[in-house]
Amino acid sequence: MDDQPLVTYVDVTAEVPSLQDNTADIDRLRRALVLPPSCRERPLLVPYGRCAEVAAGFRDSGFRGTAVVNVLPHGVELVDFLPSRPQVLPGMALDLGTTHLEATLIDLLTGERLGHGHAENQQIRYGADILSRIHYATSSGPDGRNGLGELQEAVIRSITSLAADLAREAGLKTGDIRALSVSGNTTMVHLLLRLSPYHICREPYIPLINAPDPLFAEELGLGLAPRAPVVILPSIGSYFGGDLISGILASGLDQADRVSMLIDVGTNAEVVLGNREWLIACAGAAGPALEGGVAKMGMRAGPGAVEHVHIDTDTWELGYRTIDNAPPVGICGSGMIDLVAELYLARVIDLRGKFRRGGPSDPPGFHRFVEKHLTTMDGETCFVIAPAAESGTGELVVLSQVDLDAMMRSKAAMYAILTTLTGQVGVRFEDLERIYVAGAFGKHINPRQAIVLGMLPDLPLETYQGIGNSSLKGAELVLLQESARQRSLEIGQKITYIELNVNQDFMICFSGSRFIPHTDPSLFPSVPVFSGD
Amino acid sequence: MDDQPLVTYVDVTAEVPSLQDNTADIDRLRRALVLPPSCRERPLLVPYGRCAEVAAGFRDSGFRGTAVVNVLPHGVELVDFLPSRPQVLPGMALDLGTTHLEATLIDLLTGERLGHGHAENQQIRYGADILSRIHYATSSGPDGRNGLGELQEAVIRSITSLAADLAREAGLKTGDIRALSVSGNTTMVHLLLRLSPYHICREPYIPLINAPDPLFAEELGLGLAPRAPVVILPSIGSYFGGDLISGILASGLDQADRVSMLIDVGTNAEVVLGNREWLIACAGAAGPALEGGVAKMGMRAGPGAVEHVHIDTDTWELGYRTIDNAPPVGICGSGMIDLVAELYLARVIDLRGKFRRGGPSDPPGFHRFVEKHLTTMDGETCFVIAPAAESGTGELVVLSQVDLDAMMRSKAAMYAILTTLTGQVGVRFEDLERIYVAGAFGKHINPRQAIVLGMLPDLPLETYQGIGNSSLKGAELVLLQESARQRSLEIGQKITYIELNVNQDFMICFSGSRFIPHTDPSLFPSVPVFSGD
Repeated sequence: MDDQPLVTYVDVTAEVPSLQDNTADIDRLRRALVLPPSCRERPLLVPYGRCAEVAAGFRDSGFRGTAVVNVLPHGVELVDFLPSRPQVLPGMALDLGTTHLEATLIDLLTGERLGHGHAENQQIRYGADILSRIHYATSSGPDGRNGLGELQEAVIRSITSLAADLAREAGLKTGDIRALSVSGNTTMVHLLLRLSPYHICREPYIPLINAPDPLFAEELGLGLAPRAPVVILPSIGSYFGGDLISGILASGLDQADRVSMLIDVGTNAEVVLGNREWLIACAGAAGPALEGGVAKMGMRAGPGAVEHVHIDTDTWELGYRTIDNAPPVGICGSGMIDLVAELYLARVIDLRGKFRRGGPSDPPGFHRFVEKHLTTMDGETCFVIAPAAESGTGELVVLSQVDLDAMMRSKAAMYAILTTLTGQVGVRFEDLERIYVAGAFGKHINPRQAIVLGMLPDLPLETYQGIGNSSLKGAELVLLQESARQRSLEIGQKITYIELNVNQDFMICFSGSRFIPHTDPSLFPSVPVFSGD
Repeated sequence: MDDQPLVTYVDVTAEVPSLQDNTADIDRLRRALVLPPSCRERPLLVPYGRCAEVAAGFRDSGFRGTAVVNVLPHGVELVDFLPSRPQVLPGMALDLGTTHLEATLIDLLTGERLGHGHAENQQIRYGADILSRIHYATSSGPDGRNGLGELQEAVIRSITSLAADLAREAGLKTGDIRALSVSGNTTMVHLLLRLSPYHICREPYIPLINAPDPLFAEELGLGLAPRAPVVILPSIGSYFGGDLISGILASGLDQADRVSMLIDVGTNAEVVLGNREWLIACAGAAGPALEGGVAKMGMRAGPGAVEHVHIDTDTWELGYRTIDNAPPVGICGSGMIDLVAELYLARVIDLRGKFRRGGPSDPPGFHRFVEKHLTTMDGETCFVIAPAAESGTGELVVLSQVDLDAMMRSKAAMYAILTTLTGQVGVRFEDLERIYVAGAFGKHINPRQAIVLGMLPDLPLETYQGIGNSSLKGAELVLLQESARQRSLEIGQKITYIELNVNQDFMICFSGSRFIPHTDPSLFPSVPVFSGD
């Protein structure tokens, strides 16, 4: 079975018109078009807006050349006719994040990446997070016309400008981009489509739409080819967006025989469990500390973010590494996990996640180390990672007790989410074939350190697999494979979503997880437990 | 099998959202929508441009009400949601003529006519006939942008204004009209769609499109409901338009077991022959004289047009009737046929179609009659129908020898067309179950008189059936029945078109038909033949 990209080329050689064969141009082209086998059962449509161009292209090419064909579920659309087959068929895959856009330009003929880029979501000026955007969009009333329009225009500008950058770098024009796939959270999709997000954040949290039908670039005012299909990854609900469906696609969770798990940590921790038979998912507020958004010195992974920390308990030296080896300015999620795990293993924090200054049983090196690194700022105990002289800001780079407390809550929430979800279906952690960890978090995290903290289950390290920006990867798959487009809809149909906020098991689990590694250390046989204190 | 109109209402009662059932609004509506059986296999689509309105309507109605659904071949579209089912579902059927538009407003729920109206085609100012329109449309070059745009805007204005009239008279708003079907000749359809008609009138006479996919009112800038589907009756070729497909639909020619014939006389005579198994068609220039467009006093059927003439050869009195009993101003096609047949039967013209002043064998009454009615104007013999004192113009109403010659050519062409077409498939006139005669011509013509002239075959009068404006009737059927929409496409596929201009048989037939009734009078046993002269 051929697995068609969202847009494809079909070479055509038609009979030249004559008095004996005076079929109309468009009908002649339809007749001569030999579609790929998987498309032949579908209606062949010529959208009104493309008739004139298609017919002119066909005639000007002497009734032979290359048809540009949109492969949509309800039909195959003839949208352009070119005198010869171009070398590439560019499509854009977009991860539409609340703060950042990441996109690739993909050749739909080969799957090759023609370009890759980032941009800020220009909606930022209307609010940093989802809730403030929803507020802005709906500020002029429940139907929220004006704010909504501004937000749509802002994200359309962002996308068009990113598309222009990608095209230019690939030696193409923006209008050469013939397809777009978008993977984003439910609110970002609503704002892109100018659909009111009013009810998304209000009980019972109902989106306006989960699975939009394919639409077209010209309907959104994007600068791509006018009839470029825009495919939007479906959402499951207000707090479970197409970005996660993308992650499922990218991981292949929905196609495996054995059960695996997918963890995506963004503003929320979103977790999916399942296999080809069933899928279950939940989302919970485990993210902020892990994303670096809450801690005093917390930051997103970027230049100068401390991403790796090591404490040598022989020499009592602290080593760290920053992104791009820039002078340290803060600490990102993976650095935070590294640091807290190292502090625990060095016994600088206890199993409740509190800083300890040690006692007589601690070695002299420990005392020197604590003396050097623990300080008090604004009445709060802080751990100094880098002195002011070393830092990029001229100030200390520290982890405060408050930050540590937030981190403890996040790690507890994460483990409780994983435990609750697996518990719902009676799957044990040991039964998992793989745990896919998505996003920047998955790329940088050291699973061993997360296990030490009791954040991730104590499984062989090869169980864990970082899959990078799976939102973007899923969007790429959707551009390239009709099977992936079908899977995205099937996943949306098949998945069961659990609301953790109302879940009793979760709250019990969460309480038990607020120790390092856990109140029940037998769950973490590989992690040393320090008694006493 | 249910036979769906182009748009239908579907009553919906959906579950109210809750934390336990937090499906998105649009997805909830899709889930709750129980389509008519014939629509269930099709994809259910919600066009992007209608999402916000559909969702708002659904929510504001408390998740129950009436969905407005477009029934298209490639899918069923959810385009609106109303709190309750309106009493009517208005659609507009349009006969889009070169000079006139005729339309009805139809309730798609019942088939009832809600209104009926006429308007001028505002393209008239750019040229009276098809060729001058094509010239204007393409005057700025083969792609003809500017003229084409003006012509499109003119016809769109005409349609919108007629729609507004129909809606107002029915107590509705133009935006309440939820569907449009258009039946017109190939060129009118091209101009409506802003598609270049350049090649329509140039050998080998290739239209740009024969069978456009359904489009939407908003794409044309019509003032109807934005997503009102616009269905255009398909054409067969440059000279065989959707108006004739409409005629086939209206007559049911394509569904009968026995062979019948359809004759539509407009600018051309268009003739179709066939049954449920096969259809064959041709068009020829038989029309101008019959339409009254060529003769000196010729006119379209309208007030003051002489439509019926009788010569009493006992009293030698001439009687005539005009449309609306207005003072005579000219003579329409049916009046022309009546007049010429009566003149022949009164022996005022001979079998070659020439005026005769008679001889010794003619009775005295004949001589008085000829003395009174034959005159010479500008050196040409003319027959006076009404003296200047009686006429609406203050001038004589006459038929000149030149007019008579044109009429003879037209009647010969008509008979030759019918003979050639039946000859192609070996059907004898006697085998025909019915001869449907479409248009104003069909409405007013007296078949007996046309038989006397040798224009129509000498068959029992009940064979002939006038079917009025079958272009409009076909457009109505297409609004009301999916089966009619399918038939229109099947007819387009099935029909064989014969080009008469290049047909040898036709030319031979045409020569033999230039006598009254024919050079072979045995073909017209019921018509008296006057020997001598």
